[in-house]
Amino acid sequence: MDPYPKPLRDLISQLKRLPGVGEKTATRLALFILGDRDNLAGDLSRSLETVSDSIRLCPICFNLTDMPKCSICQDPSRDPSIICVVEEPSDVLALESAHALKGLYHVLHGLISPINGIGPEDIKLPELIERLSKNSVSEVIVATNPSVEGEGTFHYITRLIEERKLPVRISRIASGIPMGGELKYMDQVTLASALRYRRSVKEK
Amino acid sequence: MDPYPKPLRDLISQLKRLPGVGEKTATRLALFILGDRDNLAGDLSRSLETVSDSIRLCPICFNLTDMPKCSICQDPSRDPSIICVVEEPSDVLALESAHALKGLYHVLHGLISPINGIGPEDIKLPELIERLSKNSVSEVIVATNPSVEGEGTFHYITRLIEERKLPVRISRIASGIPMGGELKYMDQVTLASALRYRRSVKEK
Repeated sequence: MDPYPKPLRDLISQLKRLPGVGEKTATRLALFILGDRDNLAGDLSRSLETVSDSIRLCPICFNLTDMPKCSICQDPSRDPSIICVVEEPSDVLALESAHALKGLYHVLHGLISPINGIGPEDIKLPELIERLSKNSVSEVIVATNPSVEGEGTFHYITRLIEERKLPVRISRIASGIPMGGELKYMDQVTLASALRYRRSVKEK
Repeated sequence: MDPYPKPLRDLISQLKRLPGVGEKTATRLALFILGDRDNLAGDLSRSLETVSDSIRLCPICFNLTDMPKCSICQDPSRDPSIICVVEEPSDVLALESAHALKGLYHVLHGLISPINGIGPEDIKLPELIERLSKNSVSEVIVATNPSVEGEGTFHYITRLIEERKLPVRISRIASGIPMGGELKYMDQVTLASALRYRRSVKEK
């Protein structure tokens, strides 16, 4: 016999759908939520409802937004001729926190991954090409992760743009030793990449 | 400028109230919930609402329930003369999974902890004494954790019962080496306790 009432058991099942949450963590979270005197259950429930009702994808860059256009696409101070291509909305957050991009974004919502059956049509790649064809974009910065899928998607984007002879400069974010990192702890691929793409220091 | 829309930011704040969830985990969970195509947000929201609406404490043992009495207190096959005192509802689950108790429970919802300002009146201790005074209970098994607070609460319960001269046998769950544990990895207090409370093997 299950000593937990059904609604609690249901909540545990729902929490188990979250990444990295198993039976034990879900039970701990559910009991914590129930034991919270500041109505965490109610607040969280309302918050989830609002999110699922109001959050949509921006029709231009496919970032998350609760407005007709996302806040970045709406911003007149951004340069629309530069488009930075990323895998996920969280990558936009990471790049925005660096305050280093004055252009706009394009969120692919995935990467091409033949092994997982994800082709170019399954992510927002056709939308990227359409966007590049229609608008006067001068540079596409491909900022997918330096992984097998990220590199593969980068090469695929390059090929698509070159095939269509779009007048767009393509660039790839730099790969190398992260700031504060130590050479002795880096893997060989990163070291090889850091050496290969070394910057030449020009003297005036 | 925050690149995340307000409803998403709100959800992240709510998720951060969960134990062990910081900014990064909350963001990851929120984005996962949003990206889930099987309406995890809606399901989780409904589940939380149902839980916060329907789950109450059993008026007898203070376990969680969605009925007027909890499933254990309702069960006619359980022996009401044995009461096992535990700290939290999750302890009931743990003990029930062992199928080793035929009696009922009493959930204290905390332990006496002077350092945190939690006195006997702040937990369900008065209710325990009332329950013992009214009903014909023959044994109270104190199954609080073998921690400072757990031991302190055990001694306090013992004193209360003895002061009131209640005709109740008091027992404490055994403390020792867990099954499958290794002596060399045990702390000194556990080893001392295991030796002190050794069982004598009686030959017939």
